[in-house]
Amino acid sequence: MLTPFVAVDVTVLDTNLRAMADHAAAHGVALRPHAKTHKSPEIARRQLALGATGLTVATVSEAEVFADAGDLFIAYPIWPSDEQVARLRALRERTALRIGVDSAESAEALGRALPGLEVLVEVDSGHHRSGVVPAEAGAVAVAADKADLLVRGVFTFPGHAYGPSRQQPAVDQESAALAEAAAALTAHGLDASVRSGGSTPTAALTGDTLTEMRPGVYVFGDAQQVELGTCGWGRVALTVTATVVSRSGQRFILDAGSKVLGADQQAWATGGGRLLDLPDARIVALSEHHATVVLPEGQPVPRRGDRIRVVPNHVCATVNLADELIVTENGTPVDRWPVSARGANT
Amino acid sequence: MLTPFVAVDVTVLDTNLRAMADHAAAHGVALRPHAKTHKSPEIARRQLALGATGLTVATVSEAEVFADAGDLFIAYPIWPSDEQVARLRALRERTALRIGVDSAESAEALGRALPGLEVLVEVDSGHHRSGVVPAEAGAVAVAADKADLLVRGVFTFPGHAYGPSRQQPAVDQESAALAEAAAALTAHGLDASVRSGGSTPTAALTGDTLTEMRPGVYVFGDAQQVELGTCGWGRVALTVTATVVSRSGQRFILDAGSKVLGADQQAWATGGGRLLDLPDARIVALSEHHATVVLPEGQPVPRRGDRIRVVPNHVCATVNLADELIVTENGTPVDRWPVSARGANT
Repeated sequence: MLTPFVAVDVTVLDTNLRAMADHAAAHGVALRPHAKTHKSPEIARRQLALGATGLTVATVSEAEVFADAGDLFIAYPIWPSDEQVARLRALRERTALRIGVDSAESAEALGRALPGLEVLVEVDSGHHRSGVVPAEAGAVAVAADKADLLVRGVFTFPGHAYGPSRQQPAVDQESAALAEAAAALTAHGLDASVRSGGSTPTAALTGDTLTEMRPGVYVFGDAQQVELGTCGWGRVALTVTATVVSRSGQRFILDAGSKVLGADQQAWATGGGRLLDLPDARIVALSEHHATVVLPEGQPVPRRGDRIRVVPNHVCATVNLADELIVTENGTPVDRWPVSARGANT
Repeated sequence: MLTPFVAVDVTVLDTNLRAMADHAAAHGVALRPHAKTHKSPEIARRQLALGATGLTVATVSEAEVFADAGDLFIAYPIWPSDEQVARLRALRERTALRIGVDSAESAEALGRALPGLEVLVEVDSGHHRSGVVPAEAGAVAVAADKADLLVRGVFTFPGHAYGPSRQQPAVDQESAALAEAAAALTAHGLDASVRSGGSTPTAALTGDTLTEMRPGVYVFGDAQQVELGTCGWGRVALTVTATVVSRSGQRFILDAGSKVLGADQQAWATGGGRLLDLPDARIVALSEHHATVVLPEGQPVPRRGDRIRVVPNHVCATVNLADELIVTENGTPVDRWPVSARGANT
């Protein structure tokens, strides 16, 4: 097979899927995995078979790909342009649908266009992206209710958990923010029965506030999760197989660069990804088609033509660059799964 | 049109294409643009019509897409696996072909498989990726010659020019490295008539050593080039149109994130991209489907639903995430060009 290619170890994948399903069940929390990570109907099917309550998606076009799941949450404050409204109307004919809202203005526009649509109010729990501060959640919910939307609760994304030792503080903030926002809805006589949050780095710490969690990355794991300590090497299900094309001293070059791995690199990352079988190696630079790797002095350097498995930093980006995933079992390719929602950005 | 989408202003594009063609002609340097940036046959056609001597590509699969250009250089030290050899043989039937080589070992393997193939010896001029130090270029060239390859000269990529004030030093190193390597070839009686280098940030500084330049990004420009001072705002031909979906104080959120823009962000960048019509705005964070933008106090914040043009940091990554480019003229869509080599990584 030509390199680079994106391979998924189906045994590890299934272990990851089952472990998260069991974890959610043990804590009495609904699992609504984020499909943005895998973008693959075959993996969604496995998640639902293991008891997922539905799927989370980020965009309307992802929702269109996964409508057969039957129960979708678009965890995004969609602005209802005429074109988006037409697509959301068509989607509602195909699946139970819930979307995010984070302002009275968008609630009013959504309600006019799609009366009766279920919504969750998005709350900023410290990531400072979209979402309102908890104190404003009540006002947004009241506006949504008046606009003929069906308010079901609140949601947040604790994205600030992506950093060393930041998981517990982020979970504490998430719990507090969702609890405060839910109380505000209840005070207005509105339904706050859904309190949705969670992410892969915080999944193990799920507290008492959440009723629903939306992890995505857990299906594959990636170098970020390994370096955060939220995923062991043995739970990395997706790698990019690359070929050594050049070498000089302790440096060698792989034919996998940012156009297959993605360029995501947090400030705390050790490099542009990791090598599954060479844990001491560091990807010191990533060009579009080159990974520049350095091994410590004394460690044997792979030869030209050798094949090496790269663990990408952020697996969501990697999958979104691939047309298909090569499915392997005990190292042997057994299937190919299309990345049906690749590029589904609108 | 649904956002986000990738738009190319064809007037600016044609200005950029003509300016680089004129610049190369004025300096007597062959222009062999790198097609990895645009991945689009329509843009390749325009480059060739303006006098480009051929195209540069990074991979065999890119070469397969652009074979009709008739003269290709794969600027990459391909490791000739059996599958790559079969594809290179088929390519030679379709086009003049030249590839990179940076070791005696790969030269010998290539020569056995593809006798008579034209090669350039790759030299490391300071970027420390692939390529040999100039002093070793002679040995690689001799091995290539013995292996029945046709040595035509040397090439380098001065990637270390990507930094503030680093262009002139990188060009000086590029010139010195190519000159030293070419002299080594000549000393062995080998052809060193091609001395190929160049990149968009160094294009204006092309010295006396180069016989061929291979810029890619110049066709579109991007935020990196603007921030390096090697491209004015008026020469930015590609933008991603996004919609404001959320706002809070001086912060607002666009529906374009790393899955459409790419996640490239050099240490010296001001953020995750720039806004063409709001030069004081900073993209302080980029998630997969959110750009978090902050405007200085006092500047009016766009409203929800407003459309904003984002200039990506690194346009090659952006194009590789798109299936098509929306071609505009005076702000009006006039055509769609397929990104035919999207994902062509092998």
